[in-house]
Amino acid sequence: MKYIRELETPCLILDKKLLSKNCQMFRNRCNDLNVSLRPHVKTPKSVEIAKIAHGNKIGPITVSTLNEAEYFAKAGFTDIIYAVCVVPNKLNRISYIQEKYKCNLKILLDSIEIANEIKNYSELNNKALEILIEIDSGEGRGGLILQNQKIYEIINDFLSSKSKIIGVLTHAGHSYKTDKKENIKKIATKEREIALSAAKFLQNNNNHCKIISVGSTPTIMEVDHLNGITEARSGVYMLWDLSQASKKICSIDDIAISVLASVINHNFEQNKIVIDAGSLALSKDTSANQFMPNAGYGIVCNFNTLLPYHNLCVNELYQEHGIININNKSLFNEFPIGSLIRILPNHSCITCAGFENYYVIENNEILDTWYRTNGW
Amino acid sequence: MKYIRELETPCLILDKKLLSKNCQMFRNRCNDLNVSLRPHVKTPKSVEIAKIAHGNKIGPITVSTLNEAEYFAKAGFTDIIYAVCVVPNKLNRISYIQEKYKCNLKILLDSIEIANEIKNYSELNNKALEILIEIDSGEGRGGLILQNQKIYEIINDFLSSKSKIIGVLTHAGHSYKTDKKENIKKIATKEREIALSAAKFLQNNNNHCKIISVGSTPTIMEVDHLNGITEARSGVYMLWDLSQASKKICSIDDIAISVLASVINHNFEQNKIVIDAGSLALSKDTSANQFMPNAGYGIVCNFNTLLPYHNLCVNELYQEHGIININNKSLFNEFPIGSLIRILPNHSCITCAGFENYYVIENNEILDTWYRTNGW
Repeated sequence: MKYIRELETPCLILDKKLLSKNCQMFRNRCNDLNVSLRPHVKTPKSVEIAKIAHGNKIGPITVSTLNEAEYFAKAGFTDIIYAVCVVPNKLNRISYIQEKYKCNLKILLDSIEIANEIKNYSELNNKALEILIEIDSGEGRGGLILQNQKIYEIINDFLSSKSKIIGVLTHAGHSYKTDKKENIKKIATKEREIALSAAKFLQNNNNHCKIISVGSTPTIMEVDHLNGITEARSGVYMLWDLSQASKKICSIDDIAISVLASVINHNFEQNKIVIDAGSLALSKDTSANQFMPNAGYGIVCNFNTLLPYHNLCVNELYQEHGIININNKSLFNEFPIGSLIRILPNHSCITCAGFENYYVIENNEILDTWYRTNGW
Repeated sequence: MKYIRELETPCLILDKKLLSKNCQMFRNRCNDLNVSLRPHVKTPKSVEIAKIAHGNKIGPITVSTLNEAEYFAKAGFTDIIYAVCVVPNKLNRISYIQEKYKCNLKILLDSIEIANEIKNYSELNNKALEILIEIDSGEGRGGLILQNQKIYEIINDFLSSKSKIIGVLTHAGHSYKTDKKENIKKIATKEREIALSAAKFLQNNNNHCKIISVGSTPTIMEVDHLNGITEARSGVYMLWDLSQASKKICSIDDIAISVLASVINHNFEQNKIVIDAGSLALSKDTSANQFMPNAGYGIVCNFNTLLPYHNLCVNELYQEHGIININNKSLFNEFPIGSLIRILPNHSCITCAGFENYYVIENNEILDTWYRTNGW
């Protein structure tokens, strides 16, 4: 296949030039900030894309599942942070991935309970694990707050263990909840300061702290400086989406990913165009709508130019049907049954997870098909 | 592995006894109504489950994607309706599946444009396709309304073609939008009447109409009779979910599917329990909440007994994190870090689509792992 019009719908289309541009921009940004980039591959879940994020080579990455860890380790990525707090039922697989692929898979914790479990596990099984402590820099999800005495207890727990605390990690994910750059800047400043204070606490308690890891895409884009921080973790910048565009972190033109769909019915009585992309192809994520109330379940674009059409969006979703409401019957002629559209997603991390492959295009020609890994 | 506590989280758990009971109940229901059962396998997407739906054998099925069609055809299912209106970019694959697996894959249309495309395709390629016309019985999604003159034109189009119209199909999906049984009954009566009128129209215009197909789970459960109808298509009854329970179409105890998750953090400051099931494991579907406002993103249950815990639900979702808000700090002790919970989903069709396998349990022991097919 050479052209988009030959593809079977629904499918996921990735514009390679936009992907490369986005990745280059973010590498430059991290260079300017003098931090390493450890892209969060939970967004693309693709080896090819992770390599492009590093300028066509292998580099450090962040993962959100052990399935990702294993897939990337198998492809040669050896420096991985699994950035979700670990539980005992995952330790055997973590050890397996480390040994099988000679991969340094670092893990995260924020509780004494898990610190004890890991310490026991590493002693019983003679395994050395590298551990980061998750710190809450204001998101209020996981992570310890700095004042919490438990940090001290956790550090102490590992002083005599084969497994070692090697750093701190925080994620200011609440930066997604505002569209004001000055708010994002404040959140980013606090993210840096709290990470540095946590690192200092480790150092003051006889611990090395070789990794001081921060990052959400908005905070890295807006922060004034990251002095003292060692690395930035961000993911969605590679593909972008309407949620980021709605907060002006990117422009709609930067979005590298879209869902190709066919018009399958015209409902003349109710002024609805029906497409073959439903909730499994688009996801039920509506996160862009907070600051972009016309985003619906995705913005409807021309399938060739990717230019939005008449402010249309996908208004309703069924499992395999999407509904576009129109207010002018003449639009039926612009979207004949069997014709194609492309839809910009609310949240690329979630929408892409419905698909096993990216159809990679350049100048609207299909170059390649890249696999992505899903599940756990 | 033998016990649930040995599983790595998140994962999907299927209770085989509940599945079998639900399937038996629905087979009895269709027997009583004197219609064939053509289960919609878009819910389970599993060969093992589709066989159980037919009493441990192969039988007619409904699919929502050609990926499902191919997967089930390969497993020996030969009587399949692809119940989403077809577009030209799918015709080659449809022919391929039919020929490769000697499968009678029936297709759906509701427009003259597609009727013409199919007629041309079948003449050019010397293929005979069996076609159903989709009729709108009030849902207002796809399908022609009965008064629409196009039905006559479509029928006429095929009188001289190798491909044939063999029936009518309608789906009263608006039965999902009410929790009043008397409303569902009215919708079901209309679904039947409109399907029969459409069939009569076909017969009056020199067409056989061997299939008169109706069905959503609620309408089949509530309809008084289906005299004259040949078959019922329903899917969600096999697994059930909170959305159906919220409308009292099933009880919470009937739900055969749940997501197993681990507690990964305690956020003491904000009274949050954090689990490792986020929007990819639970989906962002919140459809139960209309009539069950405390369903959140799923109801939190004991991992062994599947009994709901203290009316807790999943309140917030991130990609791989879920948040359970608690109003009493003593609950932290009931959900220690590393402990397991099971979550009943809003909409099993959508939640299951995040997973590649079912862990099948009976009396809380793991019997088997069943694959499910995803994507297109």
